[in-house]
Amino acid sequence: MKAARYAVIIAGGKGTRFWPLSRASRPKQILKIASRKSLIRETFDRIAPLTGRKNALVVTVKDHAGAVRKELAGLPTANFIVEPEGKNTAPCIGLAAVELARRDPGSIMCVLPADHWISNINSFRRTLEAGMQLAERSDVLVTIGVKPGYPETGYGYILKGKSLEQNLMVNAYKVKGFKEKPALRQAARLLRSGALWNSGIFIWNTTTILALLERFNPAIYQGLLKIQSRGGVKNPSLLRREYARMPNISIDHAVLEKAGSAGKVVTLEADFGWSDVGSWTSLHQLLPRDAQGNAGLGRRLLIDTKDSLVYSENRLVVLLGVKNTLVVDSPDAILVADLKRSQQIRDVVAELERKGHRRYLA
Amino acid sequence: MKAARYAVIIAGGKGTRFWPLSRASRPKQILKIASRKSLIRETFDRIAPLTGRKNALVVTVKDHAGAVRKELAGLPTANFIVEPEGKNTAPCIGLAAVELARRDPGSIMCVLPADHWISNINSFRRTLEAGMQLAERSDVLVTIGVKPGYPETGYGYILKGKSLEQNLMVNAYKVKGFKEKPALRQAARLLRSGALWNSGIFIWNTTTILALLERFNPAIYQGLLKIQSRGGVKNPSLLRREYARMPNISIDHAVLEKAGSAGKVVTLEADFGWSDVGSWTSLHQLLPRDAQGNAGLGRRLLIDTKDSLVYSENRLVVLLGVKNTLVVDSPDAILVADLKRSQQIRDVVAELERKGHRRYLA
Repeated sequence: MKAARYAVIIAGGKGTRFWPLSRASRPKQILKIASRKSLIRETFDRIAPLTGRKNALVVTVKDHAGAVRKELAGLPTANFIVEPEGKNTAPCIGLAAVELARRDPGSIMCVLPADHWISNINSFRRTLEAGMQLAERSDVLVTIGVKPGYPETGYGYILKGKSLEQNLMVNAYKVKGFKEKPALRQAARLLRSGALWNSGIFIWNTTTILALLERFNPAIYQGLLKIQSRGGVKNPSLLRREYARMPNISIDHAVLEKAGSAGKVVTLEADFGWSDVGSWTSLHQLLPRDAQGNAGLGRRLLIDTKDSLVYSENRLVVLLGVKNTLVVDSPDAILVADLKRSQQIRDVVAELERKGHRRYLA
Repeated sequence: MKAARYAVIIAGGKGTRFWPLSRASRPKQILKIASRKSLIRETFDRIAPLTGRKNALVVTVKDHAGAVRKELAGLPTANFIVEPEGKNTAPCIGLAAVELARRDPGSIMCVLPADHWISNINSFRRTLEAGMQLAERSDVLVTIGVKPGYPETGYGYILKGKSLEQNLMVNAYKVKGFKEKPALRQAARLLRSGALWNSGIFIWNTTTILALLERFNPAIYQGLLKIQSRGGVKNPSLLRREYARMPNISIDHAVLEKAGSAGKVVTLEADFGWSDVGSWTSLHQLLPRDAQGNAGLGRRLLIDTKDSLVYSENRLVVLLGVKNTLVVDSPDAILVADLKRSQQIRDVVAELERKGHRRYLA
């Protein structure tokens, strides 16, 4: 019998870097910044043909549950798992795994961050299909490694080992190891050695990941087992208590690094145009641009303007004689920034907090 | 008996250069751009102590009459003269003169553009008081000449002649001649020779200006006489017909230049900080600026920002890492421009017209 396939969409991010569009109540994943659809809706629509439209679990936090449910209207309420508190990916993915093991033992789970962007959807689906087939016939953990475009220091890297000859339509490798956020020189070295960016997309059998969690991080596994045996996510007070005790650790540190050393991790080399949409600057890079390098969404008029990014929800935005400029319009606030300094938007958010202007952050 | 004094406020300007704040229905003079009061309200409040708050006539055009009346609520309705069509200053000032001659013969009229800015109000009042006293005791035309700060090519210049020894508390001169919008080299020469910018502020006896209009421009004078003798501004169909026939000519060309040659024009040298508020750029120059050279009105947060101008009517405007930038927020449109290129806003307006986006201009 063929195993059932599930998408597990991780939707916990805050995304203050997309202020003024992103707010405490409007996290990045529900924003329509890369297309006319929200990032989470794009993520769901991208994977659904491979899993079926009902086979998706969404893990989110209380503050965003309403907004996230609204974006994925049509998905049964029972498919949304609300974390009692925001934790790193190991508890979060573990929670989804025990829930899936209860509903559909031996199923394949495909873990997807809700707020990333993929340019080439066909290539994405080919790669994910290959990953699922691999996870269906073996007990490996499948990671998706992205061919790096430059020596980014903010990402994790996957070190490729021996090539797998699996006739999968994509290049597959044993994973030799992982390297989290390297310094610039090391990132350059990793790039030259053929290492891949860790996309945060993982595919495995539910049974496999739980067995490896038990082996490599018994603390999390025991907590998950207690939750599962006593009502699962439907026992909120137990869930809250057990969740609070779990270490705040990523699935990479909790399982993947150790499983990699044990020869249990594989990576598929992806070339489908991936971005974690980490800032307005990276968004400018991935969007279609006109001949002058301008991109954006909404009503706008650009005169003598170059390499700029404009977002307008309602109003007409006119740019005259500017370059490298980011303009974002929202109902109560407007941001005009040097596009290269969009990382500094966290300073804006901090300053608004310091000055007590909470209403622009809510 | 001391002659009555009247302010005649000329409020016909359009000011598309202040888009998106200025619109067809919101001309520059009613905008609150230099202070919390509109320019026309500032103009009225500045002169009122010298004339009395009821002694003001406002000449405007039909499209702006409602907005202008609202800004000067408190002034009797009869004090607003609505031109049947926009004409240059000779017909406009002539119309006010015959109206004043009918209401209060022999009165002093002080002509003031509605949309200029004066920094030093006390100095302004001292100068205007001197001008009125001069017009009360002689039949000269008094002009206010502004000490030029630089060789502006867009203004008219007043050429000073012999100094008047009138003990007026301000420097007064016979006017030798006028020079309209000189080329740059000539402007520089005028500057060196002590010529003054023509502020467009004039003071004279109603009887004097009408006599000189009769002498130097009988066409306008005859039209005005016909209007006056047959109901004045209260006979709109006659007014429309006669007004349409009048030459579209400035008071400078129609009267002042010729009266100057006849030795009938005087200028008072003003040093009260004058601006015709011709563009956002000139507004940035006249507003108080912070240590980084930033100015503006409304709620704003500036981080690493220099030499910029921000106008917000309602929303919070945040600038991050920009310089020489103009940001103007309005209910339906936002402008972000190189502050040095604010003259080009007319291109924006033209482009919106061309694209049929009239609703952003109305």
